[in-house]
Amino acid sequence: MYDLTIQLQTNGEKCLYEQIYEHIKREIKEGRLLAGERLPSTRSLAEYLQVARSTVDSAYGQLLDEGYIEARPYRGYFVCPLEELFLLEENVRKARNPSPILPVIETRSKKETEYYDFSPNAIDMSGFPFGVWKKITKNTLNDGNQELFSQGEPQGDYDLRLTVCRYLHSSRGVNCSPEQIIVGAGNDYLLMLLEKILGRHVPIAMENPTYKRAYRIFQSFAYRIVTVDMDESGMKTSKLWEEEVRVAYVMPSHQFPTGTIMPIGRRMELLRWAGGGEDRYLIEDDYDSEFRYHGKPIPALQASDEREKVIYIGTFSKAIAPAIRVSYMVLPKKLLLRYREECGFYSCTVSRIDQRILNEFIREGYFERHLNKMRKIYRAKHKLLLDCLKPFAGEFQISGENAGLHLVLTAKGEQSERELVRTAKEKRVKVYGLSDSLVASSLGRAAVVLGFGGLNSEEIRKGTELLQKAWL
Amino acid sequence: MYDLTIQLQTNGEKCLYEQIYEHIKREIKEGRLLAGERLPSTRSLAEYLQVARSTVDSAYGQLLDEGYIEARPYRGYFVCPLEELFLLEENVRKARNPSPILPVIETRSKKETEYYDFSPNAIDMSGFPFGVWKKITKNTLNDGNQELFSQGEPQGDYDLRLTVCRYLHSSRGVNCSPEQIIVGAGNDYLLMLLEKILGRHVPIAMENPTYKRAYRIFQSFAYRIVTVDMDESGMKTSKLWEEEVRVAYVMPSHQFPTGTIMPIGRRMELLRWAGGGEDRYLIEDDYDSEFRYHGKPIPALQASDEREKVIYIGTFSKAIAPAIRVSYMVLPKKLLLRYREECGFYSCTVSRIDQRILNEFIREGYFERHLNKMRKIYRAKHKLLLDCLKPFAGEFQISGENAGLHLVLTAKGEQSERELVRTAKEKRVKVYGLSDSLVASSLGRAAVVLGFGGLNSEEIRKGTELLQKAWL
Repeated sequence: MYDLTIQLQTNGEKCLYEQIYEHIKREIKEGRLLAGERLPSTRSLAEYLQVARSTVDSAYGQLLDEGYIEARPYRGYFVCPLEELFLLEENVRKARNPSPILPVIETRSKKETEYYDFSPNAIDMSGFPFGVWKKITKNTLNDGNQELFSQGEPQGDYDLRLTVCRYLHSSRGVNCSPEQIIVGAGNDYLLMLLEKILGRHVPIAMENPTYKRAYRIFQSFAYRIVTVDMDESGMKTSKLWEEEVRVAYVMPSHQFPTGTIMPIGRRMELLRWAGGGEDRYLIEDDYDSEFRYHGKPIPALQASDEREKVIYIGTFSKAIAPAIRVSYMVLPKKLLLRYREECGFYSCTVSRIDQRILNEFIREGYFERHLNKMRKIYRAKHKLLLDCLKPFAGEFQISGENAGLHLVLTAKGEQSERELVRTAKEKRVKVYGLSDSLVASSLGRAAVVLGFGGLNSEEIRKGTELLQKAWL
Repeated sequence: MYDLTIQLQTNGEKCLYEQIYEHIKREIKEGRLLAGERLPSTRSLAEYLQVARSTVDSAYGQLLDEGYIEARPYRGYFVCPLEELFLLEENVRKARNPSPILPVIETRSKKETEYYDFSPNAIDMSGFPFGVWKKITKNTLNDGNQELFSQGEPQGDYDLRLTVCRYLHSSRGVNCSPEQIIVGAGNDYLLMLLEKILGRHVPIAMENPTYKRAYRIFQSFAYRIVTVDMDESGMKTSKLWEEEVRVAYVMPSHQFPTGTIMPIGRRMELLRWAGGGEDRYLIEDDYDSEFRYHGKPIPALQASDEREKVIYIGTFSKAIAPAIRVSYMVLPKKLLLRYREECGFYSCTVSRIDQRILNEFIREGYFERHLNKMRKIYRAKHKLLLDCLKPFAGEFQISGENAGLHLVLTAKGEQSERELVRTAKEKRVKVYGLSDSLVASSLGRAAVVLGFGGLNSEEIRKGTELLQKAWL
């Protein structure tokens, strides 16, 4: 039930009860008052509109007579069904076809689309400890924690920052204090903050291909984007010196989409470049560092950063669940000061309740257990997909780099990428052209990205079989 | 327990077990591994670092001998207490004195500060239905809703937008479709989006005094801010025509801090101005419209907007709880298109779980009940404060406008604002100078803001008594 704000004309043209009656009728007809919705009591509406109660009585009476509303004993007046369903459906239909510019939502069920979708963004939620999450949430909301409903610290609550700080150090070798951590609702938001910190019109270097979302965000900042070619070690640093670049955006532990892992030598080159200029910085996006399957752990680039040149960004959306809108940014102390001057007054975008839940989830060891579990699951899928792709070895070069949630297939032959995507689609398999991630001229050979996070082993088998029919 | 990322040197200078031993010792000494924390089992660490298990055994043995760790039967190895407490305290102290630039957190208990704090931002959480919120949260997290953990729509989930749309229409007369609503984590974030939509270097008009936070945000956008004087009807529109203004930011239903309510005539003037230019818009910040105590409900400015010139912004942080980081923005269709082009790819900053909880809270009628309850509570405080301020009537002009969570006292005499704040402080009462909200030259007379949301009646009585001693 809602208040009804009615602008009553007192010029006497129409009597008040008629105006109220017509307003409510219109509300119902136009689907703003939905069927089953309770109307205000005549008394409260009369008080609210400051008219005589009898006026509202007459209006309601009229609506009753005409069947727009019904009276339920002891409960009050309710809106009748009418064509409400139709109206609602219409609304829903409108919303369910978002304009093509809007990203498609990842919650389609296989049945709907009949697709084997090798999306590199999909993750496996089957292993998520919903029960634990629910339990922690329940405990977090017990009456002892009412202060959680009050405003928190702009950078995020200290306890969570301490936990993240220690997690990053032990798992990624990141060196920082909780004071350097900014908690925010997603990487996109943190990058928006970063614009305020780094300033406008910054010339920024990105690998080609790269993470398209970050590219579009930097574009929306009107940053001048210098695209840098890659070799097998990642970004070629020579161009950084040639061009007037101030910031370089890299994914050293697992570049998207190529999967390249940046060796220590190249990392040192990058740090040397950054060290060569007062205002030069490196943005390290450590987006899926949690999922490495073979070989020794590779620390973050930030771990080798001795001159405070690395801005480290990571998220829990990939390792826990996309709905967990919590990302973190580690700022070099110099930028931290600028953050406090420029953005210190922005309130934190993550509710303290969610921060506490996440903090408990990590502190109690559930996060680590979950990561180990998912690492096993993804390692198995990774291996399975590699096996299933053996038949393709003749015509495709397969690169996976023992990490992450996707592989890259590069055609040795002359097929075009569009051709590969189309023929796969005909077999109801969705693969993603590497050119989706291109931010400059093509790479020559056709290549496609195969993500396996969202598919179960059966789907991986079936999907690759179909790809075989399509491509071999 | 955490992974330990150790960069092992294999140049033979130091044997592996020594390197592991020294790394862990350093971690403990420097407080990164806290007392009571469990170390990885020798087997898993050996696997992880790809060294012989005996190597890790020797390292752990050494740490045991030196008392850095202890072995607990069947449980594993744990870090010993040491000076851990000291270390942690140090961290905490560091964090508890945030740099002065950081806004102070609103969670101080009265005891700590011995203050009667008439903060205009504080709200009364005593009436919040924690139990209901907890119940809804619990139901929301039941296993049927696992899809809530997946990525949602960038504008916010349709169900919530539909609910907000209908709430805004019925309670504020706002006319819009759910497609026009953007859900975001707080007003600050929505304004950041708005910059991307409206573009850079926009000349924007603000009243003087105004809501300082918005002012600072527009400043950080490098917007040219044109400050406009107010009369008793609010912003004087003449200046909008004179200056090269494109956007005007107003709070028509209850201006902060003056409490002015903009009459329909002035609203029409504003809309006429906005209608006079293709790219002119009005930002309506309806920040505390829920709390009106007397007279008929006043619809939002957007309700009278026939040419799609009003950008309507509101939040649930004030009406429900500061921790509920959910705000909404209603965009004119023309700007909606620009939003989809410029920002359509930004992921929503509010988790779907929180969106669903809020949606249930509103749909089930709890929000309305909560609002009515709070309206009663605040109305009583508002009346009480007015009564307690009667003795001040001789020396101060009191303006309250029957709405909102604060009153304004304007000195008739020659006292300076600083004087008023200081003398109040000496009596342990915190009042807020109106000049905190000034964005241009002063208003002549000294004035202070008295917020009553966060104080109970006893505190209001005591606080005003002390003010009497201080000022009269």
